[in-house]
Amino acid sequence: MHPENTTIGFIGTGVMGKSMAGHLLKAGYGLHVYNRTKPRADELVAGGATWQDSPGKVAANADVIITIVGFPNDVEEVYLGDDGILANARKGSIVVDMTTSRPDLAVKIYNEAKAKGIASLDAPVSGGDSGAREARLSIMAGGDKDTFDAMFPLFEIMGKNIVYQGPAGSGQHTKMCNQIAIAAGLVAVCEALVYAKKSGLDQSTVLKSIASGAAGSWSLSNYGPRMIAGSFDPGFYVKHFIKDMKIASESARAMGMNTPGLDLALSKFEKLAAEGGADLGVHGLYTLFDK
Amino acid sequence: MHPENTTIGFIGTGVMGKSMAGHLLKAGYGLHVYNRTKPRADELVAGGATWQDSPGKVAANADVIITIVGFPNDVEEVYLGDDGILANARKGSIVVDMTTSRPDLAVKIYNEAKAKGIASLDAPVSGGDSGAREARLSIMAGGDKDTFDAMFPLFEIMGKNIVYQGPAGSGQHTKMCNQIAIAAGLVAVCEALVYAKKSGLDQSTVLKSIASGAAGSWSLSNYGPRMIAGSFDPGFYVKHFIKDMKIASESARAMGMNTPGLDLALSKFEKLAAEGGADLGVHGLYTLFDK
Repeated sequence: MHPENTTIGFIGTGVMGKSMAGHLLKAGYGLHVYNRTKPRADELVAGGATWQDSPGKVAANADVIITIVGFPNDVEEVYLGDDGILANARKGSIVVDMTTSRPDLAVKIYNEAKAKGIASLDAPVSGGDSGAREARLSIMAGGDKDTFDAMFPLFEIMGKNIVYQGPAGSGQHTKMCNQIAIAAGLVAVCEALVYAKKSGLDQSTVLKSIASGAAGSWSLSNYGPRMIAGSFDPGFYVKHFIKDMKIASESARAMGMNTPGLDLALSKFEKLAAEGGADLGVHGLYTLFDK
Repeated sequence: MHPENTTIGFIGTGVMGKSMAGHLLKAGYGLHVYNRTKPRADELVAGGATWQDSPGKVAANADVIITIVGFPNDVEEVYLGDDGILANARKGSIVVDMTTSRPDLAVKIYNEAKAKGIASLDAPVSGGDSGAREARLSIMAGGDKDTFDAMFPLFEIMGKNIVYQGPAGSGQHTKMCNQIAIAAGLVAVCEALVYAKKSGLDQSTVLKSIASGAAGSWSLSNYGPRMIAGSFDPGFYVKHFIKDMKIASESARAMGMNTPGLDLALSKFEKLAAEGGADLGVHGLYTLFDK
């Protein structure tokens, strides 16, 4: 996996992908890129990447193909479509989907890839746009361990906390755990801070008492001050979190598991989106409670 | 507030109170103690504290009276009963309730105390039995600022993060914010870890991916490993957390506020208690989801 003998294909050069592909380019790798909205790849092309007109053409030119696109439907099309990755990738290549997507789709891609002699990982990330920019993403991977080991040097260029979680689908399942832990946790933070306001307390002073103890959380420490300030820019979009929670909810139901906390959070976020909040950051949930 | 000229009364020498009173005794203060179950004060008496037969007798002998008892009804009886604190405390004394109790009751005690020339604070704590033992409790206080300032040297003997939150009741309201933030957050942690198990992941490996990022929380880092190990000893009892959540829920409703996350958590904890889990630690909630 050295730059001299490895060409990388990168599909999906949005906010996350652009930074991640940029790190690989800077590390000296040959890079072929495709993005549905072409101008979003301009910066990478100006930096030395080669534009290709389709996912299939990217795949045909690369040893490793990395994808980070929008929704599971996009993943399906990019991998399994007629001009997609699996129909065009070379035998012996590695495909890595870093989109947050359906665990069962990751397993399907893994199996179809394997049948063609292609290795596949699902490796979604957390850490957001700043994590991507600063190359300190958490990367949670599923697939064959030797494929993970082969990819590790590339993951290290994009992330910091890189963990092999198990067979195909395990990366996506781990990301679902992450989103489930955030979901009802955000409801809790909103309720605590709205309670503080309604009871006449100074919310920032309340944070001084509670943020460092047993009530502490990343959400409380990082989103709390922004909620108090009324600053709801993304960061992480409500509409994207809804996508993730829906995947988690469907996946949990398929395993016969009840997730009332997740369901509550999802219903509140859907209400927020219906009221015009889809493009807020997820901490915009506060506005739904502060009424 | 020096040991030479200040005698302290301490009512409620249970798990928390015993440690807290012990720190004051060690700091050289004269200490009069009362506890409903007398043997639980034996250690303090052996260490030099003076036993008194009632809250009123403690109050009559002290300049500062600190209480940490069980339920709001206990607080009411200890403060407002015939042989209680306010009927017996000297004019000019300070009373401090460190029980987690009703904010409106704290206001009532403050007003009745004031009418008798007695200063009153509500100053509940968080940090649990270990925080009490190691004198690093978080203390959140409500009442008059000058009373808080006078008490500060004593608070410093028992705690670390000591914050004045505002007028009478503000300490209790802040503690409610703390418990609300914990409540739905614990549901989120349980669902995330049960999802991990059901999807075939190794739960401890999942923690490596998610505990230090945006899904991170004190509960996930501290209770998560104990949930995974199946170790549900208290710590903080389910039955006590239910008391706190009920106070928070009633207080929120009285302010016209909806708290669906808190309500969900409360209903789950009540179910857990009904199934025999009242004496588990709060992280025993996991057993309700892991079915």
